[in-house]
Amino acid sequence: MASKIIGVGNCIPSEIINNSDFQNHCFFDENGVKLSQDNTTIAQKLTALTGIEQRRYASKELTTSDLGLMAAKKAIENSQIDPETLDYIIFAHNFGDVPHGKIQSDAVPSLASHVKYQLGIKNNYCVAYDLLFGCPGWLEALIHANAFIKSGMAKKCLIIGAETLSRVVDIHDRDSMIYGDGAGAVVLEATKNDTGIQSHLSASHTYKEKDYLYFGESYNPESSSGTRFIKMDGRKIYEFALLNVPPAMKKCFDESGYQIDQLSKIIIHQANEKMDEEIVKRFYKLYNMPTPKDIMPMVIGKLGNSSVATIPSLLSMIINNELPAHTIKENDIILFASVGAGMNINAVVYKF
Amino acid sequence: MASKIIGVGNCIPSEIINNSDFQNHCFFDENGVKLSQDNTTIAQKLTALTGIEQRRYASKELTTSDLGLMAAKKAIENSQIDPETLDYIIFAHNFGDVPHGKIQSDAVPSLASHVKYQLGIKNNYCVAYDLLFGCPGWLEALIHANAFIKSGMAKKCLIIGAETLSRVVDIHDRDSMIYGDGAGAVVLEATKNDTGIQSHLSASHTYKEKDYLYFGESYNPESSSGTRFIKMDGRKIYEFALLNVPPAMKKCFDESGYQIDQLSKIIIHQANEKMDEEIVKRFYKLYNMPTPKDIMPMVIGKLGNSSVATIPSLLSMIINNELPAHTIKENDIILFASVGAGMNINAVVYKF
Repeated sequence: MASKIIGVGNCIPSEIINNSDFQNHCFFDENGVKLSQDNTTIAQKLTALTGIEQRRYASKELTTSDLGLMAAKKAIENSQIDPETLDYIIFAHNFGDVPHGKIQSDAVPSLASHVKYQLGIKNNYCVAYDLLFGCPGWLEALIHANAFIKSGMAKKCLIIGAETLSRVVDIHDRDSMIYGDGAGAVVLEATKNDTGIQSHLSASHTYKEKDYLYFGESYNPESSSGTRFIKMDGRKIYEFALLNVPPAMKKCFDESGYQIDQLSKIIIHQANEKMDEEIVKRFYKLYNMPTPKDIMPMVIGKLGNSSVATIPSLLSMIINNELPAHTIKENDIILFASVGAGMNINAVVYKF
Repeated sequence: MASKIIGVGNCIPSEIINNSDFQNHCFFDENGVKLSQDNTTIAQKLTALTGIEQRRYASKELTTSDLGLMAAKKAIENSQIDPETLDYIIFAHNFGDVPHGKIQSDAVPSLASHVKYQLGIKNNYCVAYDLLFGCPGWLEALIHANAFIKSGMAKKCLIIGAETLSRVVDIHDRDSMIYGDGAGAVVLEATKNDTGIQSHLSASHTYKEKDYLYFGESYNPESSSGTRFIKMDGRKIYEFALLNVPPAMKKCFDESGYQIDQLSKIIIHQANEKMDEEIVKRFYKLYNMPTPKDIMPMVIGKLGNSSVATIPSLLSMIINNELPAHTIKENDIILFASVGAGMNINAVVYKF
């Protein structure tokens, strides 16, 4: 039994935050030293490195589960299924619901329970749980759903990735400009034909890499609240990703049995445009090939890094023809890949 | 392919908190009205209803992932496996790591990543993730691992349940006396014989029940911090559990194909002794039988409700002969069952 995506949806929050909106922030480095460059220069360097010019923030009254719900509703509508027939609702996130202006995250009950409730589903055997696996959490949830379908435990699964990183950023850390909010969702269904998930790979690099992304205190030396924020060692992550993601993608792709020239598209976690380009370049280099033109859709420029939301959001945009340069046709072979906190890496080869 | 528990371990925190330790707390009801009874009477009523006389709290320097690590180390030692051969580390919790005296929870990187790091595992293909599913989270993680084994994705999985509820209780809510800290873990391995997991069931009741357990503000009307705590509507949970858990247990047990007189033991989530006794009584009533003597080991009196930790902790105690009245022999049929936030219910029939 294989499993196939039969519906997609996303939630792109309406509030656009431009780089210029950080103009009055006071940035410090990890040692608490005030950055010497002006904020315009800092923002320009950020854009040059990551491609990020804008990001979206959820409006104040919404939380992560609300964004997830909106994406879920669209995916259900797109799939035309009766939500009562869902066997699983899997919600990937990392920080739970953090109400605007608060520092406590809430995941009791689980965000999946919130979504199930809001969808009005009465079927008690639709199992709702949350999965924490860093940015690759949504893709990992897809792998979970595939396992449940393969083992006969499920026929239809709703898989949601949503995050409001804007609620956990340190405004005194320039990396705060990288993160955005968003949600994406798909419905995965058991299928007997040869489409759908062809191969998958998951890895957790913890031995040296566990704290490359972590929850830490403000870089502002005058901050004494003890409040913690999402923090990263950008340089180490960059080096880690370039070294480890391309071979992981290759291992997964080779396991699918397809030839490299059959690959139509790479949908990769939107964390850093230059990093993603270099990852894809190195991936093709492993096959002694240059990167094909338009192989990798990239929306980070307008959306920033919205963690678990980026891949399902992007997939939804392509399928809904919102990215003119990118389409997906029947029988296309797509490689999904992600990297993030853990440090986790995963990949899925998928035939549409 | 079936899956079998080959090692167990737990962590019972050293700090014993007696009911008398709540003597000076000032308790309010959900409407902010100070309870009229003295605290001795309140504690006596709590013991009469729930069986709880003591609970354990983690010492200040430890967090949930530390407790989980200690249980995991014992389970690995007990299983005699090389930890490098683990395919998964699944960590069930609901509040992440909450350092003593803090209100922010931390799950970035995941608690499973912390454990994997502390175990010194170098195998990157040992996948570490966290699962949020209320108190039934550990049993749900066991069901996940079983699915991964059945679908050929794993051969050995480490499954941890740990929580430090003492860090999220409202000291002005008498329900705070119910909760304790703890951890339990097992190693689950693929097996070709007929032992191990025989059947399982999972359910999420969200339509009316989503907020029976929730994260809410202090009952103390003078509290203005906005800090939130674990909260429950005890009466509704009691009624919900009595109505829904016995038929769920029966459905799962019947699916296993065994006869009711073959059932050796029921290992149930330790949330409330009287509630658990009534659940088991109603379960047997569905088979027109009285509750057999000593069918249900109960440790809540000394350990309180430690959420996801209670079932694996208790299983470990029985297998390690720490509960003289309870033993598990080869070929014994055990029914595991749990209920908690979501509201989630699950059950597993297991042949030792």
